[in-house]
Formats: sequence, structure tokens, C-alpha cells
Amino acid sequence: MAANQYLFGIDLGGTTVKCGLFSKEGEIIEKWEIRTRKENNGSQILPDIAAAILNKMEQRGIGRDEVIGVGIDVPGPVNENSEIAVAVNLNWGYKDIKKELGDLLGGIKVKAVNDANAAALGEMWRGGGKGCKDVVMVTLGTGVGGGIIVNGKIVAGAHGAGGEVGHAYIDHVNRLLCNCGNRGCLETVTSATGVVHLADKYLESANKKTVLKKGRITCKTVFDALKAGDEVAAEIVAEFADILGRALAVFACVVDPEVFVIGGGVSNAGQVLIDAVTEGYKRYAFVTCQNTPIVLATLGNDAGMYGSARLMLD
Amino acid sequence: MAANQYLFGIDLGGTTVKCGLFSKEGEIIEKWEIRTRKENNGSQILPDIAAAILNKMEQRGIGRDEVIGVGIDVPGPVNENSEIAVAVNLNWGYKDIKKELGDLLGGIKVKAVNDANAAALGEMWRGGGKGCKDVVMVTLGTGVGGGIIVNGKIVAGAHGAGGEVGHAYIDHVNRLLCNCGNRGCLETVTSATGVVHLADKYLESANKKTVLKKGRITCKTVFDALKAGDEVAAEIVAEFADILGRALAVFACVVDPEVFVIGGGVSNAGQVLIDAVTEGYKRYAFVTCQNTPIVLATLGNDAGMYGSARLMLD
Repeated sequence: MAANQYLFGIDLGGTTVKCGLFSKEGEIIEKWEIRTRKENNGSQILPDIAAAILNKMEQRGIGRDEVIGVGIDVPGPVNENSEIAVAVNLNWGYKDIKKELGDLLGGIKVKAVNDANAAALGEMWRGGGKGCKDVVMVTLGTGVGGGIIVNGKIVAGAHGAGGEVGHAYIDHVNRLLCNCGNRGCLETVTSATGVVHLADKYLESANKKTVLKKGRITCKTVFDALKAGDEVAAEIVAEFADILGRALAVFACVVDPEVFVIGGGVSNAGQVLIDAVTEGYKRYAFVTCQNTPIVLATLGNDAGMYGSARLMLD
Repeated sequence: MAANQYLFGIDLGGTTVKCGLFSKEGEIIEKWEIRTRKENNGSQILPDIAAAILNKMEQRGIGRDEVIGVGIDVPGPVNENSEIAVAVNLNWGYKDIKKELGDLLGGIKVKAVNDANAAALGEMWRGGGKGCKDVVMVTLGTGVGGGIIVNGKIVAGAHGAGGEVGHAYIDHVNRLLCNCGNRGCLETVTSATGVVHLADKYLESANKKTVLKKGRITCKTVFDALKAGDEVAAEIVAEFADILGRALAVFACVVDPEVFVIGGGVSNAGQVLIDAVTEGYKRYAFVTCQNTPIVLATLGNDAGMYGSARLMLD
């Protein structure tokens, strides 16, 4: 009888489901996508995923006893029993994912987790935080999310808000209104739209020459202008980096990670962003955490898939 | 043969060693103190502790096989192997506490941990956080320390700075200089001396009648004046509570605990402090964590002893 040796990692998004077949060492053997069918309260989503997995196993001649398990991440707060109360982007109400998907898979072990947390675990396993077990990941996308890994495990939090770092009150200067209803959340100035809001402020008052034009700015144009030596872009990024660096310094006083991993669309700016944030971080960091490295995420959109698979190794 | 049933919890301070004998359910059977002999680089400290434990076992007829283990907390950063690089308050350089104390105890299992972290674990086990497994403790004393408990375990951090919440940059208004060299640390305004610094600011500019007199203020006089209806004391405590509440709200976005436990000398002010901080917290908290309770620590100076004993149940 073959020993257990395969893992499935499923990243369930609002539009597509990313599916990955992994070795237990974390090598990806195959990845593919299926559509997320949200109609009828998303009732077909889990059956579709089960079918995709069972078909893949049949196609490759993988027996049930060779599969360690199927990890799945979901856009919403998942509790430690792999249940979700509601997932707006999937048209789901309450769902016991572990039981429902497990039954559809004929008893293969299933665990579910929040998507941002899965991404953090994936980056710890095979990405920017590889080799570490204490990681803080911050994902700078449309919003700002994150995941906290302590001793190789996700900190989900008592209310599923572990790693909700985008809603930490950090920006006491601009105090922009956040989607959550509060003001000054990290997300309001370091998400993709947050950077644009910051930029607007500088462009309104700028008396320096700049290639940036109000109303035609994206996060990318700001960082591109910075790389081209634009002074106003440099001011915008300096404030962005001061705020994000300060946030990381505060987080370090809570969980003191080995590494910070920065992901999401904004991080496509690359090393120039990391350098700026590192400078900001050192300005506020507690002495024993001064040299904690800040690195780029490396798995991109595959991070959730990796992290979901990694879940099954605990 | 009697089953393992006893725990020792040792709180090693710079002046005295607090020793506790516990049942494994967390009932304290006996507690006593010995002096901390710091002379000769503190070389007698561990032998003294070992003798105290072995004597107690003999006195009570407790066999080695009945002792689950001896937990000990130390004022300094302890790594996960129970080693400490340096403990200034004990005149210690490097020490492998687990091995050294374990050998002195003839092989009884030993674990060592930082004192603030032990206090948090103790409060989780038998104090203000009883019944919880995800706890953030903040100790408002001469300085501000803390401990983070996730899933019943201490988050020590990659550099021993887990729970060093006193050095989080939170106060962007007063930005007082901290002993750590940074400005605006939580400790600068919420420690016992921090409250006095805050009070000084209000007394310099106050044009309201107050019983508080600059130069003769302690943390206690401020809270006593508040309870007596003093308006300036109310302003001081309002700012204190806004800053501390905001800090807790940020910490909630990282680890999302079930409960915040507030200890240390400043917390002797009691429920009036908790009420004020809760109001501050709600002003900044992320929606899903709005109702996380904030409670007083209940074990006082025994918390470290409890937490050290609790260590041995993992």
C-alpha cells in the first residue's frame, strides 16, 4: 500500500477556484482552475470542487489512501472547526465546510481557513518566509489584509479577526474614513486605493514639478514616478512607508516575528517599496526587533493554494 | 505508585523568589519565599531554589515521581530552550536554566520563561482570563509589559519580544521619550510614571479647580481624585484611557484575543480604570472585536508563580 503523499490545496475565490495538487514536501505537481458557480446560494461550489479533486485523482491513478487531505481557503472568517457563518462573495450563509466537503470526498480529511491566513501560511511554507515559523504577512491589495503565523500555525483569533491588520488604527494624521466605518485604519492609506488617496493630498498642495496628474493616478504610476526620480512621488511613498513601517513596528511588539512578508498588488512595486518600508520600520521598532527582515511575498496568487495544502500537515 | 500530581511554580525576582506548590488543577497548596542571593554573579540562586523545592518535597513526603515538573520565570528574555543570554537584575550572564536546575533537582522536568509572559499565562489559567485560551495581558507597573497567549501557549517571539507591548508606538501626541530610546511608546503614558507625566501636562495648563498638585502626584492620587469628581483628573484619565484603549484595539487586529487582562500597580485603580479603557477601546476597535471584554487581573504578584506552574502542563 502506498503511503500518504499527496495534498490538495484549494483557493476558493469569488470568481474562480484555484486547485493545486502538491507533494507533502510542498512541490506543486499540477494546478488548474474551475469557475466559482455562485448561483443558487453557491450550492454547487463544494460539489464542483469535490468533483474536480476526485477526477484529478482518477486521472492520475491516485488512491484515497495516498491523499493526506484537502485544505481549502475561503473569503470570510472561518472558525477553528472549519465552519463559516457567512461568505458574502460566495452567496453563502452558514456552512460546515469540513463536514460537507469531507462527505463529498468520501471521507478524505478536510480543513478550511480564511484566505488571507492561508496566504500567510503558504508564504511561510514555500514563499518569502520559507524556513521561518513566526511570520507576519501583510497583503496590500484592494484592501489590506494579513495573516499571523506563530510557531508554524495560523493565529485565527477569537472572532476570526487574527491578522486583520488592515483595520489597525495607525494613521492619526490623515484619519481617512475606512470601509469598516472607523477612521485611520492602515488600509485607508496603504491599499491600492489608499496610495491614490495619499497621492491626491500631495498633488493638491504640491508646488513641485511632477509627472503625476490628479485623477489619473494608480498605485503603479506613483511607484513608477518614484523610480524615475519624481520628487512628489518620493514624498507620497515616504509617507506611505512611514505609516506601514510604524504599523509593522507595533505588530512586532505583539508577536515579534522572524520576518515580515509583504504581498498584494501594491507590492509589485518591488524592492524600492521594501527599502522604503524598512527605513520607516527602523524609525519605530523596539530595539530587540530592529533588524527583523521585511521581504516580498513570492507566491503571488498561488499563496492561498500553498497555505491551504500546508494546513493538512498539522 | 502515586501518579504525577504536583507542580512547582517559581517566580524568580531580583529581591525574592516566590515559590508555589500546586495541584495540577491549579489549586495552590502552599506558597513561601526565599531571598534572591545575587552575589558571586548569582551563582547561588538556582542551588537555593533547588534546595527549597527538595526540602519541601521531603517535608511533605512528596516523591520525585509525583512531581510533574518545576516551572520558573525569570526577569529577562528566555528562549524556547529555557536559556537566557543575560539577566541584569540577577547578575546573570548566559544560563541554561533547564539543564542547570534540572540537574540540581535530580532530573525533575524544568521549563523557564520570561516573567511577564508567565504572569499572562497565570492569569489565563486561574486569574482574570480563566476559561480562555487566547489572552492579551498588559501589566501597567513601573514600566508597561505584557504577555500574549494564543491557544493556551505563550507567544515568546523570535527575539523574545513577544508581548513587549509597552514599546509599541501609540502616543503620537505627547511623544515622550521612553527608556528604550524611542518616543511615543505606550509605556511613556500608561505606566505609573507615565500617568504622572500626563498629569503634569494637564496641571501646567489647567485653569480648572483641582485637588491635584504638581510635584505631589502619583498614579493613585489621580485615580482617587477622579473618583472624588475632580475634573482635571477626569481629563487626565480620559487621555490615558484613549491611548490604552487605542493600543488594545490595534493589538486586537493582530491576535484578536478572547479577553484583555489588565494588571500591575496602575490597575489597582479598579473598575473605574476598566470602564474608561473599555470606552477608549470601543472608539478604535474593529467591528468584529468591539465587544472583547477588558478585565482586571486577579492574581496580583502571584501571577508569575501560577503561570510558571502552568507551563509544565504542556
